[in-house]
Amino acid sequence: MIERTTIASLDKFEDQKVTVCGWVEKIRDQKTVQFIVLRDETGSAQLVREKVDRDPVCELISALPAESVVSVEGVVKLDPRVKLGGLELKVEAIDVLSKAETLPINEETSLDKRLDWRFIDLRSRRNRLIFEVQTELERSYRKTWESEGFIEIHSPKLMAAASESGAELFRVDYFDTSAYLAQSPQFYKQMAMAAGFNKVFEIGPVFRANPSFTSRHDTEFTSVDVEISWIDSHEDVMNFEQHLLTEMLGHISETFQDEIFSTFGVDVVVPKLPFPRIKLSDAIDLVERSGHKVERTDGDLDPEGERRIAEFVQREFGHQFVFLTDYPATVRPYYHMRHPENHTLTKSFDLVWKGLEITTGAQREHRYDILVAQAEEKGLELAPLQFYLDFFRFGMPPHGGFGMGLTRVLMILLGLKNVREVTFLYRGPNRLSP
Amino acid sequence: MIERTTIASLDKFEDQKVTVCGWVEKIRDQKTVQFIVLRDETGSAQLVREKVDRDPVCELISALPAESVVSVEGVVKLDPRVKLGGLELKVEAIDVLSKAETLPINEETSLDKRLDWRFIDLRSRRNRLIFEVQTELERSYRKTWESEGFIEIHSPKLMAAASESGAELFRVDYFDTSAYLAQSPQFYKQMAMAAGFNKVFEIGPVFRANPSFTSRHDTEFTSVDVEISWIDSHEDVMNFEQHLLTEMLGHISETFQDEIFSTFGVDVVVPKLPFPRIKLSDAIDLVERSGHKVERTDGDLDPEGERRIAEFVQREFGHQFVFLTDYPATVRPYYHMRHPENHTLTKSFDLVWKGLEITTGAQREHRYDILVAQAEEKGLELAPLQFYLDFFRFGMPPHGGFGMGLTRVLMILLGLKNVREVTFLYRGPNRLSP
Repeated sequence: MIERTTIASLDKFEDQKVTVCGWVEKIRDQKTVQFIVLRDETGSAQLVREKVDRDPVCELISALPAESVVSVEGVVKLDPRVKLGGLELKVEAIDVLSKAETLPINEETSLDKRLDWRFIDLRSRRNRLIFEVQTELERSYRKTWESEGFIEIHSPKLMAAASESGAELFRVDYFDTSAYLAQSPQFYKQMAMAAGFNKVFEIGPVFRANPSFTSRHDTEFTSVDVEISWIDSHEDVMNFEQHLLTEMLGHISETFQDEIFSTFGVDVVVPKLPFPRIKLSDAIDLVERSGHKVERTDGDLDPEGERRIAEFVQREFGHQFVFLTDYPATVRPYYHMRHPENHTLTKSFDLVWKGLEITTGAQREHRYDILVAQAEEKGLELAPLQFYLDFFRFGMPPHGGFGMGLTRVLMILLGLKNVREVTFLYRGPNRLSP
Repeated sequence: MIERTTIASLDKFEDQKVTVCGWVEKIRDQKTVQFIVLRDETGSAQLVREKVDRDPVCELISALPAESVVSVEGVVKLDPRVKLGGLELKVEAIDVLSKAETLPINEETSLDKRLDWRFIDLRSRRNRLIFEVQTELERSYRKTWESEGFIEIHSPKLMAAASESGAELFRVDYFDTSAYLAQSPQFYKQMAMAAGFNKVFEIGPVFRANPSFTSRHDTEFTSVDVEISWIDSHEDVMNFEQHLLTEMLGHISETFQDEIFSTFGVDVVVPKLPFPRIKLSDAIDLVERSGHKVERTDGDLDPEGERRIAEFVQREFGHQFVFLTDYPATVRPYYHMRHPENHTLTKSFDLVWKGLEITTGAQREHRYDILVAQAEEKGLELAPLQFYLDFFRFGMPPHGGFGMGLTRVLMILLGLKNVREVTFLYRGPNRLSP
C-alpha cells in the first residue's frame, strides 16, 4: 500500500514528516502563503506552503484544480489556532496522482443532476455517512441472525414466471425464451422452508417495473427478507421483526447517534418492546374518527391514514412503530393464511415507522389444498404457479416471514425524504446511468 | 412459536413429555411395534409406538407417507441400544401438519431431475451442510472487512450499457428502452473509489448470458467483490485477498473441519502466507517443460495448464493456492494497469486454487488519458463507456481489486465437481425453474 498517514491520525505525528493522500477540497492562494484543505476518508486537514517566487511547489499549487487527487509530503505542526483539527501540514512536496477537471456540480445543484455525477456527490461527509450507517445496520441484522442460527440464501433473480402478481415485471431475453426479474425472494425463501432450512434470510436486489416517479419508488432496490418455520401465527413473525429492529437501532444509536443528529438533525430512538399492534379495522376507525375519510375502497389504509395512525400511536404509546394486523384477504396475496374464525381476514401485518410502511409480513398458508383454493378464489391461473405450489406437496412446516426495504428503513432512520438520496445508485424509469 | 424440543436436545429431557416437529424420514411398521425416524434441522431421532389393534395413533402411523410434516408428543427414553442418538421417544399423540405425496426423487435420481425438485434434494444433511458452510464462509469474509473498515455497497444490476465486453449480456425490456443485467459490479466498485469510499465490498448476483452447459458455468451466480484505494500495485490486492481467504479457511476449519471431512472426504487446509506467486510467462514455461503444450494462442493458460501449475506448486511449495501474475494486455480488459517498464504486461493476476481459477484481480488504470488510450487500442467504442470514463475525470486515487465466485470457492472447498450442487437454485441456459 502507499505509505500514508490518515488525516484523523495526524495529531500523533507532531513535528514528524508524513505523507497524506486525498482530494483537494479547497485552495486559498494568497500573497505570501498558500493553503490547501485536503480530504481523505477520515477527515480534512489544512496544508500550508510559504509562497516563494518561482518555487515549483507553489506554482503547482497555484495551478491545482479542486478535487484533484494528490499525495503530499510535509511536517505536522500542532497549532490550536487552526480551526480544522488544531494542526497543519507544512508542505514539502506534492505529487498529483489524478488531476480534476472543473466540477460539473456544486452544493446548489438539483438532486437529479447530482445523480448524474453521483460519484462526486458521494464525496461529502454527509453522504458517506449514509453508507457507513447502512453497512453498520446490515451488520447488526446479521448479528441477530447469527445468534439465532439463520442460514443465508442467495435466491435467483432470473425466474421463468412472476413471483407475485405479474404486474410490474421486467422481461429479459433469455436465449430462445423469456425470463423475468424477481420482484421479491418470496417463493424461494418459502422453498427454503420446504427444504427444512428452518430460518433463512437474504439481503439482495429486487426489481419492480413501476413507472412512477415518486420520492419513494425505484425500479431496483435492496430487500431484506426473513422466513421462519414452526411459527404459531403471524405474532411470532412480528416478535422476531421487532427484536431485529430494536437490536439494530440500539447498535446504530451507540455508534452513530451524535453524528446522525449533527448531520441530519434526527434522534435515533431505541424503541420499547413490544411494538404496539392495532388491527387494521380498528386503525381505520381511529383514523376516520380523527376526521380523515380513508379514500381507498379496498379496505386498506391510505398514506394519510398511515400518518394519522402513527401520530395516534406516538401520542398514546410514545412509540414510533406500529404493527397494523389482520388485513382483509382482498388486499393480500392468496398465500397469506386466513384467520380460522374469519376467512375474510389474513394473519398478516404491515409495520409502519414514523408514518411510513416499511414491511409486509404474514403467516403463509402451508396446506396445499387451501393454498390452491385461495389462488383459485383470486382468479389466478394455476399453471404458471405450479412450480411454487409444488413446494407444498411433499411436507411443508407452518411458516411465515417478512420483507423490508433496506433503503426505506435507512431513509426514515436518517429523516430523509427521498429514496434516491440513500441509494448508492438510484434506478428509476428514466435513470439507468451512471 | 410452536412449543417444541429440537431433536439434538432430546437427551436433556429423560422421562419427560416433549413435542418434536419435523419430517418423517422413515417408517418401519412391524407386527407389534412401529418406528418412525423423524428429522428436524438439528438431526434425526427414533420414535416408537406399541402396536395395538384399532389404536387411532397406530392407524395414523401406518398410513403416514414419508416426508410428511408432523408434530409428535411423547416421552423421552434414554436407551444406549438405540443406534440413533441412544434414545427414543414413546409416541403419545401425532398431529399431521402437512401430508406428503409420494416423492418424485430418491437417492438414485440424476442431478438434473433432482434440481427439478431442489427443495426435496436440499433436505439431506449433506446438502444443508453446504449452505451452513456458505453462511459461515460469508460471515468470515465480513469479519475481515469489518476489522479493516470496509463499506458495503449494493450496486445496481440494471445498467444502460455493458459493464464488460458486451458479449454474454442479458437484455431487459425497460419501459420504452433496453437495460442490461450487470455482469459484474466492476464499474460501480471503481465508482466507489472515485467517491472516496476507500475500501468497499459487495456480495451479490451477477449475470452471464453464456450458452454453455459445463459443470462450472451458470447464467447467474453470487459474486464476491472487493476494491481498495491507495494501493502501490496489484501486489497489495493479492496481499489482501490471501489474508481474506486464510482467515476464512481458518474459521471454516475450526467450525466444520470434521463434518466436512466425514461428509465430503476433504480436508480443510489452512494455507500458509504468503501464497506462491508465479509470473504467467514462467508458469507457461513450467507447464510446457512438464510436457503439456498450451493450446491457447493468446498467451493465457488453458485449464490443463492450470491443473499442472497447481500440481507443481503443491509439489514444490506444499501449497494449494498460486497467484499467476502479469498477464499480457491481450488477454486482459483495457482498464487493467500496465507495467511501466513493459506495456505489453498488466499489473494483474488470477488466483488458482487446487487447479481451478477462482479470481481475477488487478490494479486498475486510474489515469484518464491512459485509460482512454488503452480502450482505443482495444478498438472499443468510447461513447457507451463514457459514463465509466467520467469517473476518472475529477480526481481518482490509485486502486485495485478482485472478484471471486462464491459458489466456485464453495465447490472447491467441499471437493465437489459441479457448481449446480453448491448453488441454492442453479440457473443455466435450459433452467429457470423452480
